[in-house]
Amino acid sequence: MGNSVYAERIGALRAAMSAHKIDACVVLSSDPHLSEYLPGHWQARSWLSGFEGSAGTLVVTAQFAGLWTDSRYWVQAEHDLDGTGIQTMRAGADGVPSFIDWLAAELPKGSRVGVDGQVVNVQSYRQWQAVLGKRDISLAGDLDLPGAVWAGRSPLPAEAVYEHTAPFACRTRAENLAAIRAGMALHKADWHWVSSLDDIAWIFNLRGNDVSYNPVFLAHALIGRDSVRLFVAPEKIDAALRARLQRDGIQIEPYDAAGAALAALAQGQTLLIDPARTTVGVLAAAAYVEKVEAVNPSHLLKSRKTDAELAHVRLAMEQDGAALCEFFAWFESAQGRETVTEITVDEKICAARARQKDFVSPSFGTIAAFNANGAMPHYHATEQSHALIQGDGLLLIDSGGQYYGGTTDITRVVPVGQPSVEQRRDYTAVLKGMVALSQAVFPRGTAAPSLDAIARLPIWQAGVEYGHGTGHGVGYFLNVHEGPQAISYRTPINPNMGMEPGMITSNEPGLYRPGRWGIRIENLVVNRAAMTTEFGEFLKFETLTLCPIDTRCIERGLLTETETAWLNAYHAEVRQRLLPRVQGDAQAWLLRRTQAL
Amino acid sequence: MGNSVYAERIGALRAAMSAHKIDACVVLSSDPHLSEYLPGHWQARSWLSGFEGSAGTLVVTAQFAGLWTDSRYWVQAEHDLDGTGIQTMRAGADGVPSFIDWLAAELPKGSRVGVDGQVVNVQSYRQWQAVLGKRDISLAGDLDLPGAVWAGRSPLPAEAVYEHTAPFACRTRAENLAAIRAGMALHKADWHWVSSLDDIAWIFNLRGNDVSYNPVFLAHALIGRDSVRLFVAPEKIDAALRARLQRDGIQIEPYDAAGAALAALAQGQTLLIDPARTTVGVLAAAAYVEKVEAVNPSHLLKSRKTDAELAHVRLAMEQDGAALCEFFAWFESAQGRETVTEITVDEKICAARARQKDFVSPSFGTIAAFNANGAMPHYHATEQSHALIQGDGLLLIDSGGQYYGGTTDITRVVPVGQPSVEQRRDYTAVLKGMVALSQAVFPRGTAAPSLDAIARLPIWQAGVEYGHGTGHGVGYFLNVHEGPQAISYRTPINPNMGMEPGMITSNEPGLYRPGRWGIRIENLVVNRAAMTTEFGEFLKFETLTLCPIDTRCIERGLLTETETAWLNAYHAEVRQRLLPRVQGDAQAWLLRRTQAL
Repeated sequence: MGNSVYAERIGALRAAMSAHKIDACVVLSSDPHLSEYLPGHWQARSWLSGFEGSAGTLVVTAQFAGLWTDSRYWVQAEHDLDGTGIQTMRAGADGVPSFIDWLAAELPKGSRVGVDGQVVNVQSYRQWQAVLGKRDISLAGDLDLPGAVWAGRSPLPAEAVYEHTAPFACRTRAENLAAIRAGMALHKADWHWVSSLDDIAWIFNLRGNDVSYNPVFLAHALIGRDSVRLFVAPEKIDAALRARLQRDGIQIEPYDAAGAALAALAQGQTLLIDPARTTVGVLAAAAYVEKVEAVNPSHLLKSRKTDAELAHVRLAMEQDGAALCEFFAWFESAQGRETVTEITVDEKICAARARQKDFVSPSFGTIAAFNANGAMPHYHATEQSHALIQGDGLLLIDSGGQYYGGTTDITRVVPVGQPSVEQRRDYTAVLKGMVALSQAVFPRGTAAPSLDAIARLPIWQAGVEYGHGTGHGVGYFLNVHEGPQAISYRTPINPNMGMEPGMITSNEPGLYRPGRWGIRIENLVVNRAAMTTEFGEFLKFETLTLCPIDTRCIERGLLTETETAWLNAYHAEVRQRLLPRVQGDAQAWLLRRTQAL
Repeated sequence: MGNSVYAERIGALRAAMSAHKIDACVVLSSDPHLSEYLPGHWQARSWLSGFEGSAGTLVVTAQFAGLWTDSRYWVQAEHDLDGTGIQTMRAGADGVPSFIDWLAAELPKGSRVGVDGQVVNVQSYRQWQAVLGKRDISLAGDLDLPGAVWAGRSPLPAEAVYEHTAPFACRTRAENLAAIRAGMALHKADWHWVSSLDDIAWIFNLRGNDVSYNPVFLAHALIGRDSVRLFVAPEKIDAALRARLQRDGIQIEPYDAAGAALAALAQGQTLLIDPARTTVGVLAAAAYVEKVEAVNPSHLLKSRKTDAELAHVRLAMEQDGAALCEFFAWFESAQGRETVTEITVDEKICAARARQKDFVSPSFGTIAAFNANGAMPHYHATEQSHALIQGDGLLLIDSGGQYYGGTTDITRVVPVGQPSVEQRRDYTAVLKGMVALSQAVFPRGTAAPSLDAIARLPIWQAGVEYGHGTGHGVGYFLNVHEGPQAISYRTPINPNMGMEPGMITSNEPGLYRPGRWGIRIENLVVNRAAMTTEFGEFLKFETLTLCPIDTRCIERGLLTETETAWLNAYHAEVRQRLLPRVQGDAQAWLLRRTQAL
């Protein structure tokens, strides 16, 4: 497709802007559920610009069109936008204002900015309104101008919804609803609205296939003191499931009946909504009811995995580890014998996972990145552009699976040929950071971002910094990225981020030398009770992920005795837990790569 | 004084409230300069309640009087308030609302809360207004009701102002003003108002004696593009100094002319004020001029000590260290020979500092705390209540001095008799935290709070948490507590807290076992360039404080080789730098206490 088509689409958008007296239109990468992965129906930004990256905000005025995207996508955006008339705006670069500051600075007083309020969260909308308001610029959130000009817009996904059942589902819908209603009672709320898809999947023990990787389905939910309405396309739910849900007091209503239900909530009653997980469109639709704002109770409840859930997670980790042994055994044997590319790695790793009993799907797109490609933390090999794995270097593989009993996410780096001294030093610095965090003990309730420096310190000492967070929360057969906790020192701390028992978090420091190589070592860890003293409860991490950490890349002299002891203990456990699950080459590989240092 | 006098004063306040239709009066521990130490003139809260602690907020309604104070003062407040009719409100305790939340919850809609806006910073006032506004409660900031009923209120302090001169003053007033004007230009500001006393002292190279410990004087400053007005009681400045200031373009005006000067600033011009360091009274007085809000440029400028200043600081540290050698030599020789109390320790340590050439005054009230007293981080011995130092235990001494060439702040813990194994373990945990932070390397610009976990980790691993921050900024012959940086993981991060070369910060992890003992080891450290790599600039700490860290309390087996090496290198440097400055017993003590492990 020639890039002139995008200029035409932008032209159509400008005509609609003019008709609605809108001076600037903001097109986000977002949907009514504020999801990480968007159904095609809400990929207006891609349709208008041709830029396919996962993050980007398009701003169009009468004279200007610009796409703000973060450093992961600067190069790709310049390439994709070439010939469209749309400028790449390097968000985060020195001297580049945020799109909202740009609008505030560039637009004349009295201008009107349009955005589709159905896909903007309440918090962001208010911030933008405040910034623009200072310059007497108004924000109109009731117009979907891209939608108005979008010919051939994709329909909504229509995949079936299915039940997450026992033994994997360890909490009943009734228990979840009771816990949420307890949260509502704290806020004296009669109603609670939920738009976030992982919250909905968790509350109802339902899963779906509407987007990639996250096993969720499009829906909203309205929870009352003694009623529950689930707004989901009725054809997604078969009669048997509908009957079971009905038995649990859950009424299915059409997906597009959500707005009317909100408008019908009566004055004098109170609605609990989460301003970070609800759109300003929902807020506007709930015009009459009083609103109280707080984090979704389910957001916190689902982050704290129960002991029963953790028992399943440990088994899922064993399956995942066994799959990885098979993969790595093949990978080592294939070197020098067959042509192996980054694409082959992805295929083989997915195939190995698919052979595991409780596997459902990948939990995100595999990153298999050799040498210089590994230096791009969010690199994805494509059919058009990928590396052949040969010669000397480092291969970084970040991958994960959805299992009925848990979600996995693991990164390993393995040497190809002979790693250099500098590569071994870098690898060891990252390993030291990962091990330091693995061994941390901290007061229950410590804000997760405060722990980040523990992992970073050995990497900083090598004169290196990495641009991503050290850890993200992980769901239970749900989103591989979930909140509230994030081990990321640039993330503003909020009161919900305290570390609590049962939370699963990734531990993934990294090191990226642009144009040369990238290293990241990632395990999932769960918060466990460490001790209770006169100073309160303390937590420690139990490492969940089971897969050897390649010792050939380690610069032995840089490890302390404590670090070596941690690694040997980890490998002993990996060996013991995975050995019954692997045979032949995979078993030999496991034994080889779990030898003590 | 019987406590009935306070009930009478509260009664007078209630009468004034009633006359002004005020339903609740908030009396802060604050002054128009938002200083840490208050002149008696602004100690209305003490006058009304009898509670003398440094922090507390008194709230009075028709029916209720309560004093909110933090855990340091809970016990003291209950004692001091006994019989006054004022309740102690344990701020920070579970289930105790903040005073503003209490007001929002307890007062009927339509109520009016009064506070003296002349002593409230803009940020806090707005937050309170927002909280109360949600409940239709208004905040009146234009009434000083305590002042209206305060018979015998102390006059303003009238100590002379003097000049901080070369060689100790390393930047000229002209340089400081030029740098501030560059900051004003960034904000397109015609005027800049400064109320914070350390900013004013720094800008003008002036010092004073109006409050304890901080060498500052009461003043406001109005800096224009080409004029400077300093509002200070004229009798504080002698003719010669006035002439020198005038030569530098600085006009002296009466302290109480500040309000009129603000009111005279014309519409169409722009005033730069710092909402954290200016009162809402100033904001109200500057009624006509446009306001732009940003951190005081001087706040950031003075935090970054120059190389010339650091050279003086190193010499001040040598004087301070020599004084401490004299003190500790006496202390060890006195044990078993003379009666030594916490009060004697304070007297002896101040006397030793006073013998140093460039010493001016203590930089804060000495904390000398034996055993259980040491477990109260903010304990101060008094003539009425203090411990005799005898038997076995740990003595914690936190003290510091103002020198013309810098401000010191040091904490050491020394054994008395035989420390127990548990005491040695605790001491070693704190030492490990202090050493870990001392050796940290981190990217320039890292927010200081993010570094806190590095010091805490070894203490957390012992199942211990401490309630104070690990580090505060320190001035250059100025306030011992200054911003913007704070190594304190509970402190909300703001964009001004990035670590920059030249900043001096304390490194003082601690451990407090209530009723038993307290341990804190504190050095001052300065940010120095560590290296520049492809990832940018990295900083490290240079330890400035020079005084042996007692090795008799160390549990040797708990120290790693790296930690032992750090300690030995530190002691070698302490010995080398202090040896030329001490004689006799002090020299012998230095040699004894700097022996390598």
